[in-house]
Amino acid sequence: MAALRAKLAAEALGTALLVATVIGSGIMATQLSRDAGVQLMANALATGAMLVVLITMFGPVSGAHFNPVVSLVFALRKELGWSALAPYMLAQVTGGLAGTVLAHLMFGMAPLTAGGAARTGAALWFSEAVATFTLVLAILMTVRHKTGNVAFIVGLVITGAYWFTASTSFANPAVTLARAFTPSFAGIAPADVPAFMVMQGIGALAAWQADRWLAAGLSEAGNDG
Amino acid sequence: MAALRAKLAAEALGTALLVATVIGSGIMATQLSRDAGVQLMANALATGAMLVVLITMFGPVSGAHFNPVVSLVFALRKELGWSALAPYMLAQVTGGLAGTVLAHLMFGMAPLTAGGAARTGAALWFSEAVATFTLVLAILMTVRHKTGNVAFIVGLVITGAYWFTASTSFANPAVTLARAFTPSFAGIAPADVPAFMVMQGIGALAAWQADRWLAAGLSEAGNDG
Amino acid sequence: MAALRAKLAAEALGTALLVATVIGSGIMATQLSRDAGVQLMANALATGAMLVVLITMFGPVSGAHFNPVVSLVFALRKELGWSALAPYMLAQVTGGLAGTVLAHLMFGMAPLTAGGAARTGAALWFSEAVATFTLVLAILMTVRHKTGNVAFIVGLVITGAYWFTASTSFANPAVTLARAFTPSFAGIAPADVPAFMVMQGIGALAAWQADRWLAAGLSEAGNDG
Amino acid sequence: MAALRAKLAAEALGTALLVATVIGSGIMATQLSRDAGVQLMANALATGAMLVVLITMFGPVSGAHFNPVVSLVFALRKELGWSALAPYMLAQVTGGLAGTVLAHLMFGMAPLTAGGAARTGAALWFSEAVATFTLVLAILMTVRHKTGNVAFIVGLVITGAYWFTASTSFANPAVTLARAFTPSFAGIAPADVPAFMVMQGIGALAAWQADRWLAAGLSEAGNDG
Repeated sequence: MAALRAKLAAEALGTALLVATVIGSGIMATQLSRDAGVQLMANALATGAMLVVLITMFGPVSGAHFNPVVSLVFALRKELGWSALAPYMLAQVTGGLAGTVLAHLMFGMAPLTAGGAARTGAALWFSEAVATFTLVLAILMTVRHKTGNVAFIVGLVITGAYWFTASTSFANPAVTLARAFTPSFAGIAPADVPAFMVMQGIGALAAWQADRWLAAGLSEAGNDG
Repeated sequence: MAALRAKLAAEALGTALLVATVIGSGIMATQLSRDAGVQLMANALATGAMLVVLITMFGPVSGAHFNPVVSLVFALRKELGWSALAPYMLAQVTGGLAGTVLAHLMFGMAPLTAGGAARTGAALWFSEAVATFTLVLAILMTVRHKTGNVAFIVGLVITGAYWFTASTSFANPAVTLARAFTPSFAGIAPADVPAFMVMQGIGALAAWQADRWLAAGLSEAGNDG
Repeated sequence: MAALRAKLAAEALGTALLVATVIGSGIMATQLSRDAGVQLMANALATGAMLVVLITMFGPVSGAHFNPVVSLVFALRKELGWSALAPYMLAQVTGGLAGTVLAHLMFGMAPLTAGGAARTGAALWFSEAVATFTLVLAILMTVRHKTGNVAFIVGLVITGAYWFTASTSFANPAVTLARAFTPSFAGIAPADVPAFMVMQGIGALAAWQADRWLAAGLSEAGNDG
Repeated sequence: MAALRAKLAAEALGTALLVATVIGSGIMATQLSRDAGVQLMANALATGAMLVVLITMFGPVSGAHFNPVVSLVFALRKELGWSALAPYMLAQVTGGLAGTVLAHLMFGMAPLTAGGAARTGAALWFSEAVATFTLVLAILMTVRHKTGNVAFIVGLVITGAYWFTASTSFANPAVTLARAFTPSFAGIAPADVPAFMVMQGIGALAAWQADRWLAAGLSEAGNDG
């Protein structure tokens, strides 16, 4: 129990600092620059850098998921107990909202404000599926093949996906919900949250299957390439 | 056969995500900033970051070439079977075109549009040879000496070469062809593709020979420096 | 004694080069760009890069704290002798001021000028506590779990925190004092220094306790997640 | 002899590609952006990225000095034979000039043009000594303590020093000479080259002595910190 408590604290604290980074760096960027390209670059670099830090810090404690669809996939792979899944998700959602409050207090704003920009339509929905597919597949394959540091890979994939997807790659239901409570750069209208979450789930499940298919193909036969 | 099928899927999927990054981040960058320097920086950082991710993910499956001239050089070095070369190239070309479609769908554009900016002339042709030479030599020497992580090195060499070559370093025939079907920032006029491909082949073959010459010189004699 | 002398020299020289980077890159950035977003990005990238370099260089000599609250926490953890704490802090403060002089001489300015921008108020104070908490917790957890290179993690956490905190993350009393003697981009009004230092101390002590609590929770029980 | 020939080829080719990066990325940056901050950021990121690549590639062949004062310090430390010093320096200087030609041909400019901006005065001279001191000390201490990847550290120290020194950190006599033959962003007036070289030599020798002093202090006594 003590261990689960420490794991949930790690998931909550890590998700809080992740959301504080996403929202805080967005506020700072729009205060400093009027070039939206410079704003997104600051947002992407800060988020990528802190993902490497937070996953390195909390990985040995809780696995450093910070993301309900990542926890779901690890439960499907039996690497996270099913009984721990709901507590993990609750810790991530609670931590995410705390992160919004944290960012707002650091910048002297009201703790929580529903609102944020409209982000909807088929192009953005498809973007979220692609972003989450890429994120989850990168995690699964890096972990499977032990070819790289997963903290570093996750930081890079999000830095890249902020730019190559039309939705700037939310790719995380807990973070998406937390971003529905900020009126700043990183915000999203609450009504647009559910569709994002559905597409994130679809992307994650597709990545889970793609990883299984690739791994099965390799193990079935010798290396004939 | 199952293994070859998995390898070809890895080459196609990796090349698709690479092209989606190159084209998608270019579209995002031109939508957000009017400073062409900021645009190329976003394009270079996103491409470099995703190359590290994709090579780390798919390296253990297929070698993560994503590039017909890289596969050609590995075939010349007998590290890829000659019978696998044509299937690898076909997977890369098909994956690249799928990446163009993927980027366009994420940004709500038509799947494929021939067009793109004219990119021609001796300076750009020479740039492509230099870029591909540097890329392939970096791969061969890093692999030979085991001094670094090849995924990280490829990400850095492309990030650098986007800036130090006049052509922004396409350095890959499959990616070049895929970029002939986008009207966006990363596009190239179809008529200009063949000359780029020829120069990329020349650069790759020159790197293959340079690596052989350097390695032969070192092994012939003791370390007298 | 010779060893302590070498350690103090390492702390002084490392802190001097760190402050010279913070102040020097701020001067260069404001000379070159009028976009405050570009200025902070240059400042953040240069500082992060040099932190990785300096901690890699001086870590094996002195531990590469360069920061009185980091030394305090290591003394509380009995990883630094209490008798070495005051000399370490003195070396860091002296080195920091030397760094200000170094930056000013490189840019042809007067060696030391009190002044700098007002940086005060509850939002900035809270930001400093959050920044220092995150920095110190990242150091303690990375060192404990041996999951990453601490030099790289510190560089990334500061690059990120320059953007996600409202205070741009001073997070270091010796560096804060040194920045009170520059009229440039990185400066702080001397009257605003004590409150920053208090909040930095609070953040560091909170991180020390959080790390203990997380480690205790994990060791008390088996991994039931 | 074959080995020395390979080493000299590696020094010449590596220095050529380094200079081509410095000059080429400067030309590209000034063609694309009118924000001098964005220009220097592109120049710094491209140079840092390619330094990591080139040192990783050529390190096992020649040591990847690419810099006469680095070779001089390694000769003083008896890690490079004195008889190899002059050939190394000649290879670096020749390679550097070839790099200028390479960059100019890639951008459709005349191969070599004397000229470039005036860069003179006490502040810049002092900057060059600080930059070279920091570069050489970082190399020596990283190699001595085996705490980091020297290619990565050199890339970071130059990326940082482009910003925190007033001279943008040439820190290399062969590169300085090569930059005297370009009229572009990275150029330097030929008359200003000798003073830069003298200060680079002074900085390198100071780093050599500082490293010896720190190492002697540590080995004389036990770890009493």
